[in-house]
Amino acid sequence: MSFNTFGRIFRFTTWGESHGPSIGVVIDGCPPGILLRAEDIQPALDARKPGTSKFVTQRKELDAVKILSGVFEDDRTDGPRTTGAPISLEIENLDQRSKDYADIRDKYRPGHADFTYDAKYGLRDYRGGGRSSARETACRVAAGVVAEKALAHVFGSAVSIKACLVQMGPHEIDRARFSWMEVEKNPFWCPDAVAAKEWETHLEAARRAGSSMGAVIEVVASGVPAGLGAPIYGKLDADIASAMMSINAAKAVEIGAGMEAAALSGEENADEIRMKDGRPHFLSNQAGGILGGISTGQDIVARFAVKPTSSILTPRKTITRSGEETDIATKGRHDPCVGIRGVPVGAAMMALVLADHALLHRGQCG
Amino acid sequence: MSFNTFGRIFRFTTWGESHGPSIGVVIDGCPPGILLRAEDIQPALDARKPGTSKFVTQRKELDAVKILSGVFEDDRTDGPRTTGAPISLEIENLDQRSKDYADIRDKYRPGHADFTYDAKYGLRDYRGGGRSSARETACRVAAGVVAEKALAHVFGSAVSIKACLVQMGPHEIDRARFSWMEVEKNPFWCPDAVAAKEWETHLEAARRAGSSMGAVIEVVASGVPAGLGAPIYGKLDADIASAMMSINAAKAVEIGAGMEAAALSGEENADEIRMKDGRPHFLSNQAGGILGGISTGQDIVARFAVKPTSSILTPRKTITRSGEETDIATKGRHDPCVGIRGVPVGAAMMALVLADHALLHRGQCG
Amino acid sequence: MSFNTFGRIFRFTTWGESHGPSIGVVIDGCPPGILLRAEDIQPALDARKPGTSKFVTQRKELDAVKILSGVFEDDRTDGPRTTGAPISLEIENLDQRSKDYADIRDKYRPGHADFTYDAKYGLRDYRGGGRSSARETACRVAAGVVAEKALAHVFGSAVSIKACLVQMGPHEIDRARFSWMEVEKNPFWCPDAVAAKEWETHLEAARRAGSSMGAVIEVVASGVPAGLGAPIYGKLDADIASAMMSINAAKAVEIGAGMEAAALSGEENADEIRMKDGRPHFLSNQAGGILGGISTGQDIVARFAVKPTSSILTPRKTITRSGEETDIATKGRHDPCVGIRGVPVGAAMMALVLADHALLHRGQCG
Amino acid sequence: MSFNTFGRIFRFTTWGESHGPSIGVVIDGCPPGILLRAEDIQPALDARKPGTSKFVTQRKELDAVKILSGVFEDDRTDGPRTTGAPISLEIENLDQRSKDYADIRDKYRPGHADFTYDAKYGLRDYRGGGRSSARETACRVAAGVVAEKALAHVFGSAVSIKACLVQMGPHEIDRARFSWMEVEKNPFWCPDAVAAKEWETHLEAARRAGSSMGAVIEVVASGVPAGLGAPIYGKLDADIASAMMSINAAKAVEIGAGMEAAALSGEENADEIRMKDGRPHFLSNQAGGILGGISTGQDIVARFAVKPTSSILTPRKTITRSGEETDIATKGRHDPCVGIRGVPVGAAMMALVLADHALLHRGQCG
Repeated sequence: MSFNTFGRIFRFTTWGESHGPSIGVVIDGCPPGILLRAEDIQPALDARKPGTSKFVTQRKELDAVKILSGVFEDDRTDGPRTTGAPISLEIENLDQRSKDYADIRDKYRPGHADFTYDAKYGLRDYRGGGRSSARETACRVAAGVVAEKALAHVFGSAVSIKACLVQMGPHEIDRARFSWMEVEKNPFWCPDAVAAKEWETHLEAARRAGSSMGAVIEVVASGVPAGLGAPIYGKLDADIASAMMSINAAKAVEIGAGMEAAALSGEENADEIRMKDGRPHFLSNQAGGILGGISTGQDIVARFAVKPTSSILTPRKTITRSGEETDIATKGRHDPCVGIRGVPVGAAMMALVLADHALLHRGQCG
Repeated sequence: MSFNTFGRIFRFTTWGESHGPSIGVVIDGCPPGILLRAEDIQPALDARKPGTSKFVTQRKELDAVKILSGVFEDDRTDGPRTTGAPISLEIENLDQRSKDYADIRDKYRPGHADFTYDAKYGLRDYRGGGRSSARETACRVAAGVVAEKALAHVFGSAVSIKACLVQMGPHEIDRARFSWMEVEKNPFWCPDAVAAKEWETHLEAARRAGSSMGAVIEVVASGVPAGLGAPIYGKLDADIASAMMSINAAKAVEIGAGMEAAALSGEENADEIRMKDGRPHFLSNQAGGILGGISTGQDIVARFAVKPTSSILTPRKTITRSGEETDIATKGRHDPCVGIRGVPVGAAMMALVLADHALLHRGQCG
Repeated sequence: MSFNTFGRIFRFTTWGESHGPSIGVVIDGCPPGILLRAEDIQPALDARKPGTSKFVTQRKELDAVKILSGVFEDDRTDGPRTTGAPISLEIENLDQRSKDYADIRDKYRPGHADFTYDAKYGLRDYRGGGRSSARETACRVAAGVVAEKALAHVFGSAVSIKACLVQMGPHEIDRARFSWMEVEKNPFWCPDAVAAKEWETHLEAARRAGSSMGAVIEVVASGVPAGLGAPIYGKLDADIASAMMSINAAKAVEIGAGMEAAALSGEENADEIRMKDGRPHFLSNQAGGILGGISTGQDIVARFAVKPTSSILTPRKTITRSGEETDIATKGRHDPCVGIRGVPVGAAMMALVLADHALLHRGQCG
Repeated sequence: MSFNTFGRIFRFTTWGESHGPSIGVVIDGCPPGILLRAEDIQPALDARKPGTSKFVTQRKELDAVKILSGVFEDDRTDGPRTTGAPISLEIENLDQRSKDYADIRDKYRPGHADFTYDAKYGLRDYRGGGRSSARETACRVAAGVVAEKALAHVFGSAVSIKACLVQMGPHEIDRARFSWMEVEKNPFWCPDAVAAKEWETHLEAARRAGSSMGAVIEVVASGVPAGLGAPIYGKLDADIASAMMSINAAKAVEIGAGMEAAALSGEENADEIRMKDGRPHFLSNQAGGILGGISTGQDIVARFAVKPTSSILTPRKTITRSGEETDIATKGRHDPCVGIRGVPVGAAMMALVLADHALLHRGQCG
């Protein structure tokens, strides 16, 4: 894991800025022999794509992915299959509308990485956030599809990874109404139909006020066998924490009971075990499917909190590059809740962590 | 970062089991020329050491650290100085009291890594938790001292890293009473004198009941210059998340506003900027000192939640290695709140992450 | 360093196959603020390009490089400068002439990676060698230009890296006639004008006979300060050995006296030291500028041997994928001495190793 | 691979100086379930040990290895078995005879790392060479035994790794007399009984003259299946080159035909293939068992050249730390040919590279 690379065996490196010609990802270490076409990846990108409702930025991104390397097809194969060589995926940036950047060129937007990039590098590509733009997450979503295929290839059956929004601003879902089937039926990936309705009102109000809301995303991986992970610094939960915290605007990561675990008693927290159908069966899942950094075979449950969009219409106090005090307000399109777009990204990161650990485990333990 | 290694340039690898002859850590990449004696490290180990109050396990660990390599002293130096070679630290395990392990040898303790280690490796060293024992964290604390010295060496002045317990079980501190000076005055590292008193009652009750409590630890690093970190997968907060989540029993990590960030509005969340003494000055610190994965120069603030000790006196449902249903209760000494011992470990991990990023930044950006 | 990545801080990852749409490289960890335009990279690619004489393959590759990310230009900069973000370079594959691959699709070419790729991956992209094609080295040459710029940036003055062919087939140059000025005057990068003439005859004969010749390439880096490298597994010479051996067809790597060092006496081998102009001055350079894995400040001298092109017109015994014995002969264009094209690749790899060590050294030692 | 770490999944980190209290190695990523006792490792250390003949340094090193972690034994196992946790091995430095280091403390020994360590780190442990001492290679030999066991574990049958000295000073063996059975019968690991006799005379003369000789070591691994390695920067031969070049005093590495490959014609070089016993069978092995960076299933053949010992009795020109010109001669015990001790080290490094690739391959390709 280096600056722009994640993973150990199943590794990927992303590149590209919001307003450059394109963005992309190179996946190295993917097992050979996996059927992989651009049209397998495209639906995930389309689901993530902004502009699908009034609640996400209206930027029109076609997000058509191209596979530039790492697959091969001839008349002996039933389609392009991975060869074990690096898989290079590229997505063009179509909607780089020419725009006046004079404001953010010189002023640091509060809550954004403008100040820190300048502090670190002495210069920055300020167009649309440059490297720090959430646009980079399209690469993760594309790579995540490859990771899901790798997991199915290694385990011989699909690992199911689902994600949803369980809180928008201060508004949590009602767990009693939780249904994965609801998730695709509303623009928020909300598993609670009633909450989804209410959120619409809240978010519309925030949008009209030029304000924004945070969110909490929950990601659940089912079908992961026991034994993935490693004891100390290669812990499965440590890698998930790193993966989720690397998502734009993330400020917290929870596994299983998460922050709430602190308030539980030992009796409430430790998941008891029984046998069921000849296999170990946990009577609860406070652990979120991970004990000692290694998967238990239960659902792996992670959540991450995303802060409210920092680009808001209200003028905010800030300084310029040369140290003058001033104000700044975001103009034009903005996402009132960037957390919505974080849902498929969270699912992708889970797939990417699991694929790496699946290969690592197979490597060390056979 | 591999299974038992953390860091990129400033890297450390820990080894050892709870009941082996010793445990240790090898630190590679430490800058040369730093004064380092065993007596610099020992106080941190003594502070972490169990047996200092009735609220932590009564195991008697002397925890005397030996420096086996990586320092050199002659009549031209004022003491042993790091040479740039790997620093090997070893701590003997003195109190390996012979004990009947028949119970945990065959039964999986709920909440522990017993089941997952067997699932992964097919065997495990069950004595005292083996590799998954919190004993390993002594190595982190020792390495953390070296990291703090490296930070002072690189920055020319000390980075101050402090940690405390801000919640025990469901009981939070009152932020209005927060004082770092209180932290060393009670056995809980609690910054709120009133809460510390109350916690004593709560924890004593839990201990007598054979139960246990979780905790939330807060770690604050002051004096870190702006510019440490990296944009995408080398984010400073992603590394802190990985570091904190790798600590035994951790189930959640927060940066700055953390989970609460989700409930804030954009106006509340984004920290405004002004100038002060000729330098950028943030008017709040919801960001916890990190924007876009890079330090802002403000205090870096992280928290992690630790679940309640899984070893409790109440019998719990479980299974044996061979799949028979049974019950298990912990006998003998136990920590009613392992979170207490997590305080110095959290501080050490913060130092270790920052040292690595300080060297990485100096490497890439000069 | 993983499968397709090289380096630690200054890291690059290449991707692409000979007959895919394009090939490319992603460079991560490059210092910010370096002026970088496609036209800075292009000349190095043009120099490496096949088709420049009858002695290298007539494949017409335009090899126009595009910079897709990692640089930024506005009216405050004097051109595009690196931002510290990943630099993505892409080179289109123009000359993918449609061709009958039936022969190499089913038969393993002796001396090529056909058999081993099938053994490892179970399938392979056989068009033009796929991933194992020397085409990949264009990416190294492009990345090498960035590395040279990074070296100049870090050291404040240019490190000069030169390479030449010192042996073709069994024919060595005469060291007494060695002149770097000759290197660009002949199609072989030969520093000996007389030898260059003779080689022309030898190579033409080999070409006409459908045979091929090996070569030895020498790479010299001047202006590298003392202190780059690391003691044990991060040795500068170990990294150079890895870098050079990773070049297609390389079978041996030498540092300084190389294999000949075995035949020297201790008195002949160890380079004596005197002072000159107030600085340490070595009286010879058997060490090739590296002692104990760390640079001495002298010229760094490395050589690598490249085997003769395996694609020859003479029919050779081989087997098919299904295990039938058969013969194979290469048809069409071929390089009678692939070593010639290895010259700029060797220089590029030297630059890439040095850039990584320059940043590592700055990181650890300041 | 960092400064003092080698490998990706099967990783090891060495630590320690020649005259510190001990040296050691931590192996991470070893598969679980492998029987491992100190007495399995000891014979390899004894074979490497100096003092076994008058031709190697008379330093008395007991080299008793201790296993401090990573194995577990109970009444259900037939001995201590690896657990998947880090294996920490320690070897005490017994013979740290107190000695006058005044000379090498201030003077740089030509051919040694004295100057470069000071240039890099600003200080060095000069006692016995400190970190740059060949003493570190004892750790490699110990780790190599674990690697050999891991290979047998993964492949289900032993990979046989043998090494010998094929050249001492300018004196090569006669390949016609090559016999592995001779190797253990003489103090040089020489596979040619006649040459061994002659070398005795040559080396005795060098020793008496206070001079020294270089050597070439050949390492052969048999029984390695086809498919280990990776195409570009994870090439098996690139890793072997790095591994061998990291051995003290190594100046060149060859695979298969090595430097000689440059002088061969394409017809001579490319190994033809036939079927034998239903399996691919190469008619020669110029490739040294590796094509395109991936093993062919043939013997893997590597050689490395070691320079003559730099510590000789003849006074040599050098400078002091403060830049004064002076002379230095080594006093006391010295190895007239350090290459002899390099033989078991070369074998160990081969085992370590192969173990890493075996696990990597199993991880990526199943």
